[in-house]
Amino acid sequence: MEFGQPSTGAPAAAIQAAHRILDADGMGYWESPQLKARIAAHYAETYGVAVDPERIILTCGASPAFVLALSCLFSPGARVALARPGYVAYRNTLKALHLIPVELPCGEAERYQITAAAIERLEPVPGGLIIASPANPTGTIIPPDELAAIAAICRRRGIALVSDEIYHGLSYTIPAGSMLQHAPDALIVNSFSKYFSMAGWRLGWLVVPDHLIDAARARMGNLFLTPPSLAQHAGLIAFECRDELEGHIETYARNRDHLLQALPQMGLRRIAPPDGAFYIYADVGHLTDDSLSFCEALLHDTGVAVAPGLDFDPVDGNGFIRFSFAVSTDLTEEAVRRIKPWFASKPVVGSTPKGVVVEPKDWDRAGHRT
Amino acid sequence: MEFGQPSTGAPAAAIQAAHRILDADGMGYWESPQLKARIAAHYAETYGVAVDPERIILTCGASPAFVLALSCLFSPGARVALARPGYVAYRNTLKALHLIPVELPCGEAERYQITAAAIERLEPVPGGLIIASPANPTGTIIPPDELAAIAAICRRRGIALVSDEIYHGLSYTIPAGSMLQHAPDALIVNSFSKYFSMAGWRLGWLVVPDHLIDAARARMGNLFLTPPSLAQHAGLIAFECRDELEGHIETYARNRDHLLQALPQMGLRRIAPPDGAFYIYADVGHLTDDSLSFCEALLHDTGVAVAPGLDFDPVDGNGFIRFSFAVSTDLTEEAVRRIKPWFASKPVVGSTPKGVVVEPKDWDRAGHRT
Repeated sequence: MEFGQPSTGAPAAAIQAAHRILDADGMGYWESPQLKARIAAHYAETYGVAVDPERIILTCGASPAFVLALSCLFSPGARVALARPGYVAYRNTLKALHLIPVELPCGEAERYQITAAAIERLEPVPGGLIIASPANPTGTIIPPDELAAIAAICRRRGIALVSDEIYHGLSYTIPAGSMLQHAPDALIVNSFSKYFSMAGWRLGWLVVPDHLIDAARARMGNLFLTPPSLAQHAGLIAFECRDELEGHIETYARNRDHLLQALPQMGLRRIAPPDGAFYIYADVGHLTDDSLSFCEALLHDTGVAVAPGLDFDPVDGNGFIRFSFAVSTDLTEEAVRRIKPWFASKPVVGSTPKGVVVEPKDWDRAGHRT
Repeated sequence: MEFGQPSTGAPAAAIQAAHRILDADGMGYWESPQLKARIAAHYAETYGVAVDPERIILTCGASPAFVLALSCLFSPGARVALARPGYVAYRNTLKALHLIPVELPCGEAERYQITAAAIERLEPVPGGLIIASPANPTGTIIPPDELAAIAAICRRRGIALVSDEIYHGLSYTIPAGSMLQHAPDALIVNSFSKYFSMAGWRLGWLVVPDHLIDAARARMGNLFLTPPSLAQHAGLIAFECRDELEGHIETYARNRDHLLQALPQMGLRRIAPPDGAFYIYADVGHLTDDSLSFCEALLHDTGVAVAPGLDFDPVDGNGFIRFSFAVSTDLTEEAVRRIKPWFASKPVVGSTPKGVVVEPKDWDRAGHRT
């Protein structure tokens, strides 16, 4: 339960399309106009936002889309704010591009998410802000009113917005809204790796505002060239495979429910509200102050792998672990069977603060199940 | 004849492997240890150089491999030397990464290539040097003694070397040597897009020295994640498809011969020696001082597309065009039939310098056909 990728494969019809293309197409450098149009239509259908297909830049996954976004917006030395805990590649990519990550500690009170109030207070004003909703490692979703407030404060303070929406489509409480609904100039990162279950196909996209189309296309052509041809053909078909893909979400929802029942029984009661994605970020501060060793011991003793919080939070992460439930329900149940006695046997070494325990009834407080 | 990619597809056995994998593998994020080992073995077989598989970083094509190399070696503001004419993405990628391209004009006297003597003279000493052999757009190969001299002067002056070897395997005079034979610390960029005829599969690699393995792996994981799974499976098989791939080279060699016969008859006598790749860079300075308009007129009048020299040389490129012969021999012959009368009808507007005309017998002066 360590990795942040579906254990399922691409939709069957997408695979069938890939078979046909393999036999019929020479697969040179290519950008699919049809796929760009389909993704643009997706924004109209899903979020009620009009997006010109020319604003869609197809990429080899979300990672290079993110590099592209940062490279279009910022020069070395620019300060870019982001949530802590958060996906480790944000911080590392910023550093690799000689930008300065400004990590905003986000705890239970903020549902582990950036808030408009935090951005309001930031001094000096950063050049940019990265938001992620649903987030990795917490799965928390920023509600629409807060997204709107973040958009407004960024507009007022001149902060460029990059919204990582890679986990959209995977939500259990409220649907995740797109930052495009509130900030038409935001840059949006997305991919076929999560909802579409096509991680190894390496296909993603970046939405840019009109004034950055030329800059983004130039950088794409020079830094990355084109995304894989076959993945573009298959990705277009994947948009028509909703039934199969929604089946994966039913599995994730079952797994999530099972874990939300089981974890508190193991003493893991302080859990970030898992609104979406396929993660549960659990406080294990009462059991360890070294999350990496804790995960190694868990793996060694039970065969169940989880990710140490230190991967997501270099300051407070030693008291957390991340479960990924992007596996089958059988595997989820088997993992729970194995780890339950292990957790029961662990002596409590730290203290669990009283009065802030998140009860299961609170996990859905952001809204009702979609 | 404009694009720098094979018009052929992947080898048949690679496509068959892809069919099998499509049905058998979930295709998550993945790096193929077998492919890394196979590429390492390729350096031993082809160049007699021992390379540990851990030094191979698999990438989504040569473009991100190049970004990875530059990002590992240089910080913003570093000066990196390169040949002019050259592949436009070198210059643009350097600029996008806030590095400073130092373009070295390379003319007929240097066979359009960087020389050790030019590097010796460079003041101030650049942080890095990009070489490309065979080069785009000229196809010229740097002979082994010159490669060795460049390696020596770079070592002495502390210049980091990035060698783009993407056109290796495609040569008609002498085989291209790897910079690894002379500079064990050089970073080598290569790809499956040219020799292996798998451009749209988006698979390439970077060879790094031991001391950069951790830096390169960290950047790969954060900036790009993994290359396409299917391409890695197919690429491994492509290494065993030499017969089919050598067949493509026979086609290119025929096309090259045909053009080298025909172009001088059209008055295009000043041609960079096309040792390798699938390009001919021809001087049209006697016909135009605006290569872009010239190419547009050629395309409009004959339906034959070629690339304007301005794409490769912002200073002197207006007097050049690049032919790509990575097409079928039928298409090459048809193109020649169409453009011959067009060139015959063009008035000479500039002067062709006398005494430096490259005669066909000189084109192979770097050695004999491999």
